[in-house]
Amino acid sequence: MKESSFIDWIRSRSDFDPSAVPVGPGDDMAVVTAGDKQVLLTTDQVLDGVHFALADHGPRAAGRKAMARNLSDVAAMAAVPVAAVAAVALPAGFAREDAEAIYDGLRDAGDAFDCPLVGGDVATGSGALAITVTIAARPGPAGCILRGGAKVGDALCVTGSLGGAWRGRRHLEFTPRVREALALAGGWDLHAMIDLSDGLSVDLGHLCEASGVGADVVAASLPIHADAASADDAISAALNDGEDYELLFALPRDERLEKLLAHPPFDAPVTRIGSVTAPVGLWLTGLDGRRRRLEPRGWEHET
Amino acid sequence: MKESSFIDWIRSRSDFDPSAVPVGPGDDMAVVTAGDKQVLLTTDQVLDGVHFALADHGPRAAGRKAMARNLSDVAAMAAVPVAAVAAVALPAGFAREDAEAIYDGLRDAGDAFDCPLVGGDVATGSGALAITVTIAARPGPAGCILRGGAKVGDALCVTGSLGGAWRGRRHLEFTPRVREALALAGGWDLHAMIDLSDGLSVDLGHLCEASGVGADVVAASLPIHADAASADDAISAALNDGEDYELLFALPRDERLEKLLAHPPFDAPVTRIGSVTAPVGLWLTGLDGRRRRLEPRGWEHET
Repeated sequence: MKESSFIDWIRSRSDFDPSAVPVGPGDDMAVVTAGDKQVLLTTDQVLDGVHFALADHGPRAAGRKAMARNLSDVAAMAAVPVAAVAAVALPAGFAREDAEAIYDGLRDAGDAFDCPLVGGDVATGSGALAITVTIAARPGPAGCILRGGAKVGDALCVTGSLGGAWRGRRHLEFTPRVREALALAGGWDLHAMIDLSDGLSVDLGHLCEASGVGADVVAASLPIHADAASADDAISAALNDGEDYELLFALPRDERLEKLLAHPPFDAPVTRIGSVTAPVGLWLTGLDGRRRRLEPRGWEHET
Repeated sequence: MKESSFIDWIRSRSDFDPSAVPVGPGDDMAVVTAGDKQVLLTTDQVLDGVHFALADHGPRAAGRKAMARNLSDVAAMAAVPVAAVAAVALPAGFAREDAEAIYDGLRDAGDAFDCPLVGGDVATGSGALAITVTIAARPGPAGCILRGGAKVGDALCVTGSLGGAWRGRRHLEFTPRVREALALAGGWDLHAMIDLSDGLSVDLGHLCEASGVGADVVAASLPIHADAASADDAISAALNDGEDYELLFALPRDERLEKLLAHPPFDAPVTRIGSVTAPVGLWLTGLDGRRRRLEPRGWEHET
């Protein structure tokens, strides 16, 4: 079953009152109205054998990743975490100290962003370890940044560098860009944003589809992570490896953009990787100067 | 690993700012502060082979139960559902139409209580089907009803009838008592409330422990469900079977209580099953008139 087509099906079945659910499935977080306030929600699971390898990475790193992945979704909305809950399905015979290590890992990631772990559920099942985290957040001072607002002519930028996250432990130990997102949304007119979990080629497609636009990406401009620099095809690694958990965002091409690129208000670099275009579809200008279709070949789970 | 002792350990590790987290782990929902509003959160998972049997019950019933269990936690706080998210871990090779049936089951239960399913995560793992639902809620008009407010002399009451939920399909098809809880909290001075998921003997222990009180239960007063009436020991079934998803609550013993018992403001019966006492500990007056310790023997998952 192709998960993305199932999610499309769910979206087609959704019939929300927009005053109650301003943003439903299909963005990094849903936005709902509670009284006169907006609350953002995201849920995401990590499964042993898919998103981590318990035997190699250990329970604490698994717990940390479960929380950090959700915080990356909070970052993608330029939102502020409020609290998290976690449901943990333990394999039979799981050791108490390993369960405690999962909790410690969840806390490691949550505490770093003032996101308290306020509740949870623990059950013992028949399968491999699974950790599901849900975070509630509130809009940041600049409001929610959605996927759907990119405009023709915008610059496309990313934080940090891309590729090779699974060659080391970066897919486990990344720092979600919560603070960077708030700084960007506070200082620049962000039109659209998404976090790079499935890989740039896939996530850029999500952003462009939601915005009804296309994109031109310039291979020579891609910031390649050291973990991918030695790959046979470092450009492909940066485009498709996934789990970078960096931010991809669209904003006007003006002198403030130049300032951002030269002096980002945080330690991570900001790199302009391309432009938003009118014709729908993704294009890549390769290192050879030739322009070709950019296919979404990142993490698409299909079974 | 004994899950309840692990949860006690988590509570011992929690160090919340009470203005940010008025209610942490250990009640039916956590309560957090978002701006000047309170938001309630609960998360709960159902696992194939533990909480349902996919081969017998089917995917739609599993989805429905996952949502309804969480709504029962919302009821236990006398809260109003705002929205739900769901994470589904599919076994390898799961059929698309079965995944759609899970979604339909989630919607069946959520739509009945104006609780829209606003987001989710689908992944394919190596284990059995697991469905994790998280609900965000807001306090009802009477505020949140916690486990910890029962007072000596209070009457203990339950909605509906107890026992035998797994003999038929009641553990799958129960109606969470969201509306009944709001009616009770709106019309009566509820001191404490919990939903009966683990069984009366266990859940009464949770309520009494949180309140720092004891309880006397009268076996002859227990409302026995028809599914348990033919059990060898129907009283034990009502006390210990679990998954009743009824409400247990403590309130003053006065003339308004008599009115509630005679004319509850909803279809379900309300039965007084005992009293809150000063000495800590649970006691049961049996059908033979003898008073004995009531041991928590409901659903305690231990592996």
